[in-house]
Amino acid sequence: MRIAESISRLGTETAFAVAARAAAHADSGGKVYPFHLGDLNMPTSQNVQEAAIKAMRDGKTGYCPPAGIAPLRDALAQDTNAKRGTAYSMENVSVQPGGKPVISKFLMALMNPGDEVLCPNPGFPIYESQIEFLGGKVLPYPIIPAGDYFTFDLDALEKRITPKTKLLIINDYHNPTGAELSAAERERMAAIANRHNLSVLLDEAYFETHYDDKATSLVSLPGMLERSVLLYTFSKKFAMTGWRLGAAIGPKEVIDIFNKINVNYESCTCQFVQWAGVEGLTGDQSGAKKIVDTLRERRDVAVDILNGTPGVTCIKPNASFYLYPDVTDLMDRKGFGDDYDAFAEDVLTKTGVSFCTRLHFGRPLPGETRRYIRLAFSGIDASDIREGLGKLKAYAS
Amino acid sequence: MRIAESISRLGTETAFAVAARAAAHADSGGKVYPFHLGDLNMPTSQNVQEAAIKAMRDGKTGYCPPAGIAPLRDALAQDTNAKRGTAYSMENVSVQPGGKPVISKFLMALMNPGDEVLCPNPGFPIYESQIEFLGGKVLPYPIIPAGDYFTFDLDALEKRITPKTKLLIINDYHNPTGAELSAAERERMAAIANRHNLSVLLDEAYFETHYDDKATSLVSLPGMLERSVLLYTFSKKFAMTGWRLGAAIGPKEVIDIFNKINVNYESCTCQFVQWAGVEGLTGDQSGAKKIVDTLRERRDVAVDILNGTPGVTCIKPNASFYLYPDVTDLMDRKGFGDDYDAFAEDVLTKTGVSFCTRLHFGRPLPGETRRYIRLAFSGIDASDIREGLGKLKAYAS
Repeated sequence: MRIAESISRLGTETAFAVAARAAAHADSGGKVYPFHLGDLNMPTSQNVQEAAIKAMRDGKTGYCPPAGIAPLRDALAQDTNAKRGTAYSMENVSVQPGGKPVISKFLMALMNPGDEVLCPNPGFPIYESQIEFLGGKVLPYPIIPAGDYFTFDLDALEKRITPKTKLLIINDYHNPTGAELSAAERERMAAIANRHNLSVLLDEAYFETHYDDKATSLVSLPGMLERSVLLYTFSKKFAMTGWRLGAAIGPKEVIDIFNKINVNYESCTCQFVQWAGVEGLTGDQSGAKKIVDTLRERRDVAVDILNGTPGVTCIKPNASFYLYPDVTDLMDRKGFGDDYDAFAEDVLTKTGVSFCTRLHFGRPLPGETRRYIRLAFSGIDASDIREGLGKLKAYAS
Repeated sequence: MRIAESISRLGTETAFAVAARAAAHADSGGKVYPFHLGDLNMPTSQNVQEAAIKAMRDGKTGYCPPAGIAPLRDALAQDTNAKRGTAYSMENVSVQPGGKPVISKFLMALMNPGDEVLCPNPGFPIYESQIEFLGGKVLPYPIIPAGDYFTFDLDALEKRITPKTKLLIINDYHNPTGAELSAAERERMAAIANRHNLSVLLDEAYFETHYDDKATSLVSLPGMLERSVLLYTFSKKFAMTGWRLGAAIGPKEVIDIFNKINVNYESCTCQFVQWAGVEGLTGDQSGAKKIVDTLRERRDVAVDILNGTPGVTCIKPNASFYLYPDVTDLMDRKGFGDDYDAFAEDVLTKTGVSFCTRLHFGRPLPGETRRYIRLAFSGIDASDIREGLGKLKAYAS
């Protein structure tokens, strides 16, 4: 069959190849320490599971409105208002089968072919894939280290803007670095968006995977509510990655378009899964709290070992479940230079530690000199973190 | 926010407006007979529900491969082979959150802007919406009455083909008419597709909602396996509309692209819902059989009353859960001419019978003289069918 030309512009998440390599190592008898997975090895909160089962048994198995069931839309509006100081109602909420569909639908709803879209780099690879697939142009802006934290390079971002720049993707609480905007940077980011009249996708997938419980949102700043679509997901907070439940939250005229796209694409999101989401937001929160507590412990264990590993330095992030250590010196000392693939293969073979690298998060920018890998601590217990990173430390010593 | 220009080409399912009108009638105290719903008022088979619950409790709540879990892909390949005489393996199957996403992904994978796509009319409105949204051109071909059945107007279809015609959408076991290709027509349709080298979307959503259990598929004819993508859905057979589970089945090189689109759009379909699908296909079939038996009884009851209603004639379909009666004489006698909206409103107000009309299934074609409504019997019990259509008969008498 003749394939559409636009498919040549469609990217993917190359992390799947890492998973395949790890599986091959396991098949050959090696123990794998799976730091490549962006999934959680924890069960979904019990009350959320029971709510889904009750809804299913109560016959919530038919179609529901394309925008989602009213109780979930309302609960999402109220929860967002409570945590972000906004004033949304259910008309501002479009339920989605995961957070990820919000990316494509944001671009379908708001991007014309040829529009330039500011996009974090390193960053979640699907932004670039979907911008290019749908005919836009990616303007990458750097996420950079600044002493003991990662931050958004707003000088570089602002310099990239041209009259064709119409959209801005912000992943505050950032994958893969854990970067977040400081209060001052958040003011400046809002000023840039307002001055250049940009439509903003605010991907806050990790807003509640935040270790001091004090996350704040760009959407609460003047002018931002009117120009932003929030990407919300249940995946991380409630360990619901495989349930596929999320939402777009934004101005009604844009959310109405999301709902119309829903009618065209998937009709609605699984109904009883939505009822589970209502329980997640309004029911007992101890399951969600336990998930963050577990992740915090893992983060601390991992960062300590990494910073004791010769040739490795690791910033301790306050959000997300990723670490983005600088491994330049180790790669140089081992003779790998900038050959990430050979380095990752060598580490996997000799230690079982499996990870993604900088190359999985967008094309490297001109002038980048340091080299990074990404370790996810969501899918591996603290004891295996100790054991695996202990082997990495021995490898590096 | 500035909306993308392509959104002006995005259509919808206008049947939602009918549902709103019916709800308003109910709110004002009237009893509604909901023939407008394309949903089932029956529970999902018990064994399927229990399989989902077991999978959830067993921790099948994380991400799974974008193509779907291997047991479901394998079960779908085997089930399709058994019922359609094909030779698929799991590599030919891409699991989807419903049957509907197959439409968009088929067009994304195979249609270039400007390509012409043959499309049934009347027909499911999302075909036209997505073809135009994605930059293609709709070539509608008629579904017409032929005595005691509806059929595909293959003469008209063939006349429409130009060198720009690249894709063909076939909804064998057709919504809204229940039409199916005869053996001779199926041969001719395959010959047309082969001669003009068309890529085919074979929407068989109602393949198993078939009342003599003898459905056969176009895909089994020479040349068709290589050029067709099957749209499979669990929605109708197992009363799983709100679960959102379906699949695309076709040549590996196209299914690989579907999987890549999955990575970009929704990552995967809800994992424990997929395990329920495995039980649906491989477990006890009595629930699925009961659903078809119930629908058959409803069909017989409804068709009998409609054909005893003055000014109405109704073909009895052998597939789907829709009736598409000709109401031209009734509309003329009541003075509505071709004003479907006024007619539907009058019937709803005076009898409570709620339905879609021809206008919900694509733009009428030049030369159409007869007028039709669509009654779904999936969401209304036989007793209410008798009561509601009895009132319609009294209205018409």
